[in-house]
Formats: sequence, C-alpha cells, structure tokens
Amino acid sequence: MGLKPTPYGTAIPFEEKELKFVGKNPTERPDAIEKVTGRARYAADYSLPGQLFGKVLRSPHAHANILSIDTSAAEALPGVKAVVTMDDFPDLEVEIAAAGELMVNFRDVTRNVMAREKVLYDGHPLAAVAATSNAIAKRALKLIKVEYEVLPHVIDVVEAMQPDAPILHEDQFTKGVDPKPEKPSNIATRIESKLGNSEEGFKKADVIIERHFNTKAAHQGYIEPHACVANYTEGGYAEVWTSTQGHFVFRSQIAKILKMDLAKITVTPAELGGGFGGKNTVYLEPLAIVLSKKSRHPVKMVMTRDEVFRATGPTSGTNTKVKIGATKDGKITGAQAELNYQSGAFAGSSLSMAAVTVFTRYDIENILVIGHDVTCNRPKVAAYRAPGAPMIAFGVESVIDELAEKLEIDPIEFRLTNAAKEGTQTHFGPKLGPIGFVETLEAAKASEHMKMPLGPNQGRGIATGFWFTIGNETSSTLNIAEDGTASFVYGTVDVAGGSRAVFTQIVAEELGIPLESIRVVQSNTTSLGFNFTTAGSRGTAAGSMAAVKASRDAVARMCDIAAKIWDVDIDEVAWEDGHARPAGANVGDFDPLSVADLAKKAAYYGGTIAGHAELNVVGGGPGFGTHIIDVEVDKGTGAVKVLRYSVIQDAGKAVFPDYVKAQFHGGAVQGIGMALNEEYIYDENGIMENPGFLDYRMPVASDVPNIDTIIVEVPNPNHPYGVRGIGEVPIIPPLAAIANAIHDATGIRLQDHPMSPPKVLKAMSEL
Amino acid sequence: MGLKPTPYGTAIPFEEKELKFVGKNPTERPDAIEKVTGRARYAADYSLPGQLFGKVLRSPHAHANILSIDTSAAEALPGVKAVVTMDDFPDLEVEIAAAGELMVNFRDVTRNVMAREKVLYDGHPLAAVAATSNAIAKRALKLIKVEYEVLPHVIDVVEAMQPDAPILHEDQFTKGVDPKPEKPSNIATRIESKLGNSEEGFKKADVIIERHFNTKAAHQGYIEPHACVANYTEGGYAEVWTSTQGHFVFRSQIAKILKMDLAKITVTPAELGGGFGGKNTVYLEPLAIVLSKKSRHPVKMVMTRDEVFRATGPTSGTNTKVKIGATKDGKITGAQAELNYQSGAFAGSSLSMAAVTVFTRYDIENILVIGHDVTCNRPKVAAYRAPGAPMIAFGVESVIDELAEKLEIDPIEFRLTNAAKEGTQTHFGPKLGPIGFVETLEAAKASEHMKMPLGPNQGRGIATGFWFTIGNETSSTLNIAEDGTASFVYGTVDVAGGSRAVFTQIVAEELGIPLESIRVVQSNTTSLGFNFTTAGSRGTAAGSMAAVKASRDAVARMCDIAAKIWDVDIDEVAWEDGHARPAGANVGDFDPLSVADLAKKAAYYGGTIAGHAELNVVGGGPGFGTHIIDVEVDKGTGAVKVLRYSVIQDAGKAVFPDYVKAQFHGGAVQGIGMALNEEYIYDENGIMENPGFLDYRMPVASDVPNIDTIIVEVPNPNHPYGVRGIGEVPIIPPLAAIANAIHDATGIRLQDHPMSPPKVLKAMSEL
Repeated sequence: MGLKPTPYGTAIPFEEKELKFVGKNPTERPDAIEKVTGRARYAADYSLPGQLFGKVLRSPHAHANILSIDTSAAEALPGVKAVVTMDDFPDLEVEIAAAGELMVNFRDVTRNVMAREKVLYDGHPLAAVAATSNAIAKRALKLIKVEYEVLPHVIDVVEAMQPDAPILHEDQFTKGVDPKPEKPSNIATRIESKLGNSEEGFKKADVIIERHFNTKAAHQGYIEPHACVANYTEGGYAEVWTSTQGHFVFRSQIAKILKMDLAKITVTPAELGGGFGGKNTVYLEPLAIVLSKKSRHPVKMVMTRDEVFRATGPTSGTNTKVKIGATKDGKITGAQAELNYQSGAFAGSSLSMAAVTVFTRYDIENILVIGHDVTCNRPKVAAYRAPGAPMIAFGVESVIDELAEKLEIDPIEFRLTNAAKEGTQTHFGPKLGPIGFVETLEAAKASEHMKMPLGPNQGRGIATGFWFTIGNETSSTLNIAEDGTASFVYGTVDVAGGSRAVFTQIVAEELGIPLESIRVVQSNTTSLGFNFTTAGSRGTAAGSMAAVKASRDAVARMCDIAAKIWDVDIDEVAWEDGHARPAGANVGDFDPLSVADLAKKAAYYGGTIAGHAELNVVGGGPGFGTHIIDVEVDKGTGAVKVLRYSVIQDAGKAVFPDYVKAQFHGGAVQGIGMALNEEYIYDENGIMENPGFLDYRMPVASDVPNIDTIIVEVPNPNHPYGVRGIGEVPIIPPLAAIANAIHDATGIRLQDHPMSPPKVLKAMSEL
Repeated sequence: MGLKPTPYGTAIPFEEKELKFVGKNPTERPDAIEKVTGRARYAADYSLPGQLFGKVLRSPHAHANILSIDTSAAEALPGVKAVVTMDDFPDLEVEIAAAGELMVNFRDVTRNVMAREKVLYDGHPLAAVAATSNAIAKRALKLIKVEYEVLPHVIDVVEAMQPDAPILHEDQFTKGVDPKPEKPSNIATRIESKLGNSEEGFKKADVIIERHFNTKAAHQGYIEPHACVANYTEGGYAEVWTSTQGHFVFRSQIAKILKMDLAKITVTPAELGGGFGGKNTVYLEPLAIVLSKKSRHPVKMVMTRDEVFRATGPTSGTNTKVKIGATKDGKITGAQAELNYQSGAFAGSSLSMAAVTVFTRYDIENILVIGHDVTCNRPKVAAYRAPGAPMIAFGVESVIDELAEKLEIDPIEFRLTNAAKEGTQTHFGPKLGPIGFVETLEAAKASEHMKMPLGPNQGRGIATGFWFTIGNETSSTLNIAEDGTASFVYGTVDVAGGSRAVFTQIVAEELGIPLESIRVVQSNTTSLGFNFTTAGSRGTAAGSMAAVKASRDAVARMCDIAAKIWDVDIDEVAWEDGHARPAGANVGDFDPLSVADLAKKAAYYGGTIAGHAELNVVGGGPGFGTHIIDVEVDKGTGAVKVLRYSVIQDAGKAVFPDYVKAQFHGGAVQGIGMALNEEYIYDENGIMENPGFLDYRMPVASDVPNIDTIIVEVPNPNHPYGVRGIGEVPIIPPLAAIANAIHDATGIRLQDHPMSPPKVLKAMSEL
C-alpha cells in the first residue's frame, strides 16, 4: 500500500489472561437496532436545509480528446445553480505526495475526478451540475455540449502491453526498467522481487509446471452507491458527509485536489453500506464541494448503479504466469510468477500488494516475482478485498494442485510439506513471525468435510490464502461520564458492522464494566487524531489496540483518583475487575471503588476521566486460511454448483466469534461470485455492456451453500489480545479452490476466469 | 453556584513573557464570516428529515391544582403524532443531586419542565404536542382539556414572605433556621454570613446609614428564543441540538429527568444567539426527546417570545436592606445587608452567589449578610449576568455614595480609603489574592471623563462591582493534521462570540503558528470530556487554560518527534517560535523543524500529533470594575438620559482587547436597560402583562451613549497569561451609578427599581 514500516510503531505484547467479554458473542450488536429500524444514517440519508442536487456528465467514449465544453445552455436552465468543469479545479503537478499516508500522484487523481485534456474511459466525469432537483440537474447535463476527438482505445491488459497499443498517457514511461525507455508505454511500472535464484531452484526440481492465467475485472458490488452531501461556506470551510472507508484519507485527498488546509475540512463518515476497498478514494466529494462553493448551497450527490459500475474502481483484470518446480518427495525448489495487472485509466493497481502474497504461504528458497502495472481505457481500479491477491492465488494454488496431483501427493500434505512457519524467509523482505498456517491445514485435514463422500460429477478442491494485517495510524478517545458510563470515540470506519461490538467488548474487558454501559461512536476528522482507512484487515486489529491504549490511560487516571481519595501512593492502587483496589502490604483497608464511584468524584479530584490513543500500530498479524470446496458440475450446461464449503482460518483471537465467522462467510461468498460469474464486459467501442446487477451477475442465496467455519487461534504476538486481521484472507482461496474442485470433478483445468458455464462446457468438450 | 472548591484543581502560574498574538486584536474573528453570511447554524436552523414540530400547552393561571388533563381530542387530530403530559415523565424523588457539578433538586426540575400536581405560574408547561406542522400542533393544544382548581397566588417577594401568604409548596419548610419550623413557608432558605461583629462595628461609626431597596425581575433579553431539535432512536439513544450555554450540564439534566445513561445522550450546542445565564437549564429538551420517543420522529421545538418571557427564568426581583457605618475620616466600621430574593416557582435563586459579592470590594472588619430565598408564583428564576449582584450593588453603592456625601468625601476617595486589596479578608471565607480594584479607582480618578464639565440637570455617579471568576471542569483537544494546520476542539460554549478568537490566539501563541492555520471547533458531549457551562465569567479564563495545557501536550509530542529524527534525548530539544530546535551544548547542529515539518513525519515517528486537557481549573481571578456615568434628567418628564459612560475594569490580561471592550459595553448596556426601564409587570391574577419587546422595554441604540473603556491589567497569578473573567463585572455597577448620578443631578435618591420616568418624576415632586 506504499506504506513505510516504522520502527517507532506501537505493539502491545500478547497477554495470556482470563477473559470476561472478549471471545464471547455479545447478545446484541450496538448498531443492530439502529440499522433494522432505519435510524442509522447512510450518506444519502443526510440532508441539509437548502440543499441542491448534483449530477455528473460522463464520457460516452472510451478514449477521446476533449476539444471544447459549452455549458452555457445548461447554466441558463431555470433551477440550475452551478455548472463546473475542469476549469473550476486547480490543475496539479505530477506529484507523488502523501495524502493521509498513501502515496498518490495527484496529477492523476484530479484528472480522474474531473477529466482535463482527455477522457480515458466510458463514464469518465467531465462536468457536473447542481440544481434544485435531480430532474433539472439531469436535464441540464443534456444541454452541455462537448466536442470530442475520438481516439483508438485499449481494454485488455495483454493488448495494452503491446508496443503498438494505443497509448493513454504520452508522458508515461515505464518505471523500474533500466535504461529508461525512450517511448511512452501503457506499462506504467515494472516491479521485481526475488529470493535466492529461481532458475537454480528449477534445476533441482523433478517436476516443473508453468501455466498462464487470465482474470476479468470484478466489482466489489457493495449495496450502497457512492453518495455525499457537501457544504462549502464563505468562511472557507468545507463539510462533507459521505460514504467512505477512510474519512481522514478522504480529507487529505480533498485538501490536495482543492488546495485547502486540512483543518478547514471536516469529513464525517456516514454509516457504510459496503465498501470492500471500493470506498477508499474520492469520486463525488470534490465535485460536490466545488458545486457548493459556486452555488453557495449545500449539494447532495448520489450515484446511480450504472455510474458505480462505469466510473468507480473495480479490481484489476489480470494476466499471470506461474511456474513452480518440486522434487519427487514434494519439496518445492523454485517458483516464478509474472503478474500483469490492469490499473485502469491511471497508473497504480494493487500489484504491489498482490506481489507480496504470491508465494507467501510456502517456505521456498528460490523465488522470482515480476509484475507490470498497465494502464488501459477502463475506470481506474480500486482495492477489492485482499487487493490483487485472489487472481494470483488462482494461478499459484492451481499449479500447486497440479503439482501435487502429478507427484501423487495429497494436496493438503503437499502444502504441509512446504508450509510457511515462524522463521520462514519471505521473498519481499521480512521473516514470518508466529503464524497459524500449518494449524489451518491440520484442521482442514481433520475436518468432517474431508470425510464427506463425493458423488458422480462432484469434486473437491483445496486452496489457501495469506494476507498481511496492516497497522498504521490509529487514534481514539475514551470519555467517562459522571455516571460511569463511557463513550469510546474511534476513527477506523466501521466498514462491516463489527467494529462497534468489538470495541465495546475490548473497553468492557479493560475497564471491567458491562457492555451496556459503553457507547461506541464514530468520530469525524476534526474531533479526533488521524486514523488510516479501514483496509488491509486493520480495522479490528489496529482499532482495538487504540481502544486498549485509551482504556489503560483512563484506568491510570482512575487509579490516580483512588490514590487521592485514599491518600496513598498511586503504586498502592491496582485495577481489578472494574474497581480500584488497595494493593500492597502497607496500604490500609479501603473499600474498592467502581468506575461509577470514581467518575462521580473525578471533578473534585482534578477533572474528567478520559483516555487517549494516537498510535502508529505495528502490523505483524499475518493471516492464513485454507478452504475446502465441493462442487458438482452439470455436464449438460457447464454450470458449477457449490455443494459444500469450509473456511478454516487463523484469527489470532476471535473477539466476536460469530462476526469472525460472518467475515469468513462474506469473503467466501464474494469469492464464489468472482470465481463463477462476475466480470466486466466491454463492447468493441470500449463501452461497458453490463453496468447493472441484472447483467453483472453476483451470487444470490441459491448460489451459495451453507458455509462451515473453523476458527484457529494462534495469537498475534504484537497485540495484547492476540488479534489478527481476518477480513481479506477468505476471498483469496475460492477461485483456485473452485478450479481445483472442478478439475477433481471433471478432469479439466481452467485458467480463464470467470469459470462460467460456457467456458466449463467448452473445456469439457476439449478433454 | 454550589460548586465545591477543590485542592486538586489546576493552576498554571502566570508567566511574564513577550507575546506575539495574545493581547493584539486579530484582524478577523473566526466566526465572523459564518455569522454575517448566515452560515452559522443556530438551534432553529437545524432540521432533520422527517421531523415534527412540537408545541407546549402552558398554564393560564398563576397557581392552580391540576384536576385532570384530557388529551384524547388532540391525539385524534390528523397530523398529531404524539401528545405528552406528566404521565410520560418519571417522577423524581426529592434529590439534591449533582447534574454536571451543579447541585439541583430534581423533584423540582422535572416539575418545572412539566407540571405535575400543580401549575405554579403563568406559562408553566403541562402538556406538549408533536405534529406534522406548527399550525396543527397549535390547533391540537386547543383541544387539550384541563380542569383546574384555581388557588390564591403571590407574586411579590415581600408579600410571599408573610406568614399568611398563599403557600406554593406545602412540604417546604425554611432551611437554615433553628429550630426547624413547624409551618411550611415560601421562604425556602435563610442564609447568614458574617465577619467580626457588625453591631460592635456600628458602635465605632460616626455616621450610619440604613436604606431599603426594591428591584423588579428583569429578563436577559437574548435575541434568540430557546429552540432545539431532538431525535430519540429505538436503540435508546437521544441526540439533541440546542441553544445552550452548557451542553454537558444539559446532558446531565436530561439524563436525570429521563433516567437515561449519560453515554446514551449526545447534546450538540448550536451557535448561541445570546444567553447571559438564561440558557443554563433545560426547558424544551426533555419534552422534545419524549415527544420524539413517542412519535418515532425527530421533533423540533422553538419558543415564541411570549413563551420566553412567561416561562423561562428572568433574574430575581428583590427586596434588600443595607446598613453601613463609617468614621468621620471615611473608614467603614461595620456593614449589614439583608437580601430577600425571589426564586420563582421553585427554590433556588442566585442568592448564594449574590451574597458573596455584597461588600466584597471593601476591606471591612465587621460584616453581617442575611439572605432569604423565596418562592412565589412566577417562573423559576435563572442566572442573569453576575447573577443577583447588580441588585444588591444598587443598595450598597447607593449607601456608600450617600455616606461619602454626608462625610463630604469624594466618592472615589471614600472607596479608595476602604478598597479591598491583596490580603483583604472576605466575609464568606477566603482572603483576596492580587487584585486590581484600587487600580480601577485610580484610573477612574485620572480619567478624562472625571474632567468633563456638567451642565444643568446633569449629574455624575460612581459605582463599583466585583465578580469572582470560577474555573471548574474544562476539557479540550488539539489535533494537528498532516499539513501542520490545527483543530482545537473545545467544550466551553462560545456564548458571546469571542471564545473562538481567543482560543485561536492562545494556540497560535503556544505553538507559534499563524492564526489562519488554526481552526477552533465546538465539540458535542460525546467527543470530548466534561466541560462546565460557560458561566461565572469562566469561558476565556478556564477555556484558555485548557488550550494552554493541550497545546503544551502537543508541543511535547513534537519535541519527541524531533528528538527521534535527530536521534537525541528529548531534553536536548526546545520549542521556540514555532519550531523544535536543538538545545544544550552537546547537541549537534540541526535545522529547526516547524509544526508542518513535524506533522508530515508524525506518522512514521509514532502517530498523529495531538494534545489533550481534562482539568478542573482553579478560579481565583476575581474581577473588579469602576463605572462613571453622567446623566441628564428631564425635569418635565422624569426621563433620564445617559450622556457619558466610562467602564474601567481589571481584565488581568486582555487577550483580545476589542472584545474585552465589547464585553464592557455589553454589560453596561444591559445595566442601563435594567436600571431605567426593564421590569416584569403582573396583573392582579398573576398574569404577566408585558411578555414582548414592545412592552418590556429594552434599551435601543438611541438610549445608549458612546461608552469609553479603560482596561486595567493586574495579572491573575493562577493563569499562565494572567487572564481574569470579565463578562459579569460590567453589569454590576450601572444601577447604583445611575442612581447616584440622578441624585447628583436632582438631589433625589431612588431606592425603587426601575428608575423609570414616573418614579423619577414622583420622587422629584416629593423633594
């Protein structure tokens, strides 16, 4: 993610202890009632008095020069209060700058938000209108006259890499190659990462398998379209309520794009109706602010589903090559991978993250990973749950399966033979700490699932996944009111609905007060210190670390109050089971003081009880999982039905076990959808053909079996409760596991995604 | 204010140093543009989707038993979504409980919000309606049938004290008398406070003067009527946006009245359109929440001006006696005062606060102060700028003037002879610290004003005032964003529009960054630790102390980052002029690092830069002032015209001098209004006759002369910048100063307030 590791990060070592709240399912989720009664406010639920409605004019071409934009007729339409184009935004230099920790090229970011010289994809914004109604705004869009010079376009990643491909950016020369190229290219960056010598490794192998794989772009498919309300005041302040996974990073992006001071912008994260990586970057927000500034009214903008598909980031379509060699007794001796990842219209795919995951489940001495980040005439890609990892795992875990088959070794045993463990050297740098990969494989081997018999046309597939847990900047505050009830204010957006419950459990555990006495509240960007986006599986791991720190701060303050009340030294006060108690031999016999007792007296003894955390949390809680999938293939139609599904994953510590299972389920379901049906389809003009849920086929309930889960718990040594990130891992194995299961059922090996009925049918016919 | 002093409070000693921002008028007030462009959101500007409108049914009787309330017809009216009465509120025990530090009897508070057994004043709420429009809500009020048993009532404080007066509360027995009385009384409490022996003091006097004074109730007259929007969710959370001087205390009151957990309530203070003590307590908020709970919609409630006058707290009407004796050479030997203060329908006037101020400008060895808090059939009184003090100062400073005249001593010299100074023993307990009273008298003596000649029918009056500055609980947070701009989050409501500017100056001074880089934001009750109400002149004094603490926290964190960057010990880093600089002989030669430099690197070096304060601020910044007023009396009409006005006051340190002057002006103008015209008028049935600005005559521009100001600066030793509270003092002297000026012009001495033309005319005719 372009995030530098820091030696100054905070780790709180794992503490083995008896737990009262952590690890037990709370009877009620703090957000549940608000959500089912419709009280929770999603971005489109916000309204400000006097607000206007904003709509975006989007390119109908995949690639074209903008010759002119005439907005005069739109501006003249009654009810239209502002029309903006590129002229209303500052142009930005090529500047790879940090916006809230992420290094981003703002010349590109501003051009993605509002096209300047060129439109680069079907749906690229090039003007926006604010009007007194949505209907008027839409009518105004039709009155904007744009002259285009249509250019040749390129959609596919392999085609885009060809020397004669239409070039998106004449000033883009491939980075990471020596000497610097003389001709511009759609290959924005080449990366290379190696360990040992892979060619030498292959020499020691008895069997080598090399395969090529292709995957199509897929969308995160969140229920809630992007939406925001923005208000810009004459005092130069901007307020934004929006659907985001990271309001602090949104604030940073807005500040850069609009050249504003960070302190003058307040971004409030609304309740989130799904993100999965797709809500890490601004689309509407800068437009809404500039429309508000120009119209002097608040402006609300809500995307249609069509806009979500055409103009927000899906995952990359990819072309990959995987080559692995192993000895007869099943030891992998060398491995190579090439990753060609679409970045969409502007450089910067998930390639660098994906490259970290390629072989990082196995202890391999010789590795070479090469990657290319490739621009093409598609919307700029975004993160999608374990960004980039499922596609390369599709290749690696398929080849592993094929190797095991060829060597006649059980696929779980083959993986156990090569499994990464504490001390395994990765190809990208660090050695692995204590991890639970072997434990997931052993649990898979011992599972009931492995004992279930398979019928005709049925097959079983295994695949595994790895994701690092990032930590990053995390701030929180705990305020204890005079009655002893507590407000925990956090800033890692609750993207999946579990954060509030988990933070409540952690604070209850630390303070020793009931769950009902704790309210957990999401802060805006002004009231709290910086929090990085909820991504990289960091939400629970990093957010709960900040909760621990803030709680312990507050406990220290409560011990201080007790010491003053008892007139003893603070060292003579201990915090146990929700009470300050006298500690040590020389202390008198005082009645324990509860949080409520102390809160009532806090003012007299120096001021309110609060605790604060501003941390850069150390990550280091890598997550590993093993999936077992049984499928049945319809020989007549090629349709693949998932019969049984087991997710076995190391959660470090499952704070809220049912919710951990829900995360496992969610990843698996998204993986099933991606594996079997989801894909972006473009026509010959580069226009997306399926921008809606009728034609972009996400899984429905009948596509998904009951999913069994086994939670493995190997504590993360850098977290006081041992928590690891769990959100990303379960979407990584499904593509490969399903491909392996299809092979088991039919004998075919699919290398083209999605594994939809026509492809299965065709492959079977070619057997 | 019923606030216990604490030995654990925070004082940061005064530091003499060169100042860059503090003491200089900023070129722009941070709230100015938002206010003049209408962007600032006052309570009535808030709207939530789906909100209803709430109206209150109020008693048309001064005193009556409620026999029955029938709401069925109102509930049946289409558009009515909820009707609430006392049955919808929990009854509360007689409990003198702390609600946000203020000790309050919640049995009374809940009965003032919604009458139970009885209505006790014209305007007392006894039902409320929420409907889809204000018009429907008003119509519904008319459909509510109430059966009353009208009771005899009492309005005047002296009448209410008589043994045969109608009794408001049969269970109220005068507290503070021994033996405990057997009969209930409207005298809720008797207080007594003494120093030395006043009778012995009088024996040493050559001249003794004793006078009786009467003042009428006056309203704070804020522009903005009380208003709020409340939303109660099925999850059991309440959100309130309201016009308040103290959202944390409002939260506490709501929690008590509705028996809720504090953490489940969020109160957001809107921009305040004036309060002056009148917005320290809840009126509409609990009603709006209960209406929202019952209707399942947000509810907005806005008072009419009529409701503000009839049913919110004015200051007490009073009856006082002052007796002072002095020797021929002008030394006061003894002083007595009796204060009879209306509390309105429920016990608890400003008596206890007023009693502290009575003689606390003079060094007198023998003092006796007796006070009575008296219930009568009027709205429960509220604080009004220097609560209770102007009325007793009217008496004391009139008698002082008369004594000086009788002894033929210049009134300023007489006061200088007796002036309190550092070490003076007060009658209520503490000795005074360093104060600036003598300095204000000396400055008055030397002023240009004293040299201005007076014409016929013109006179000059002098009077002085004292107010203690309270400190109390104050919390704040300073968050520094990645670009080095800062957000200062505070919780002492900006009641007068100066807080944001002052806090900006303090943070700029501490951090060494420009004013423009700092945004100052008012927090809700959830995001920040407890803050006491902005009252008692504490806003700037206490709020800026918390700003200093939070800033120094952040500076310490920045020095920590610099130490890590330079790899030196933190003791080897100093903060000077907005930069971390190497300090000490052994440190290398490093380039200084600015806030922006450090902010950019904060994440890598451990996390965001922030600072926090949770303090119980030590008060101890008593304020003193001397006013000089010239008037001209129209012998034909009795009209008094204020010709010249000078306010001389000790501000400790004027952080924002123009705003200090504005506070002086504001107090003087309110004092002029109170002195000459403002009064509550009741008819024989106890119904207020002048509940509107046409009949309740507040001063207009033509009533007020240009007001000169002299700022004296004797630093408060407990505040790092020497700040004292300044808001209350300037309303204390005007009544007496005008009375003394009228005497100087005409020879009459008025003891009845207001000094309106009929009274002046009558007194002149009796000369």
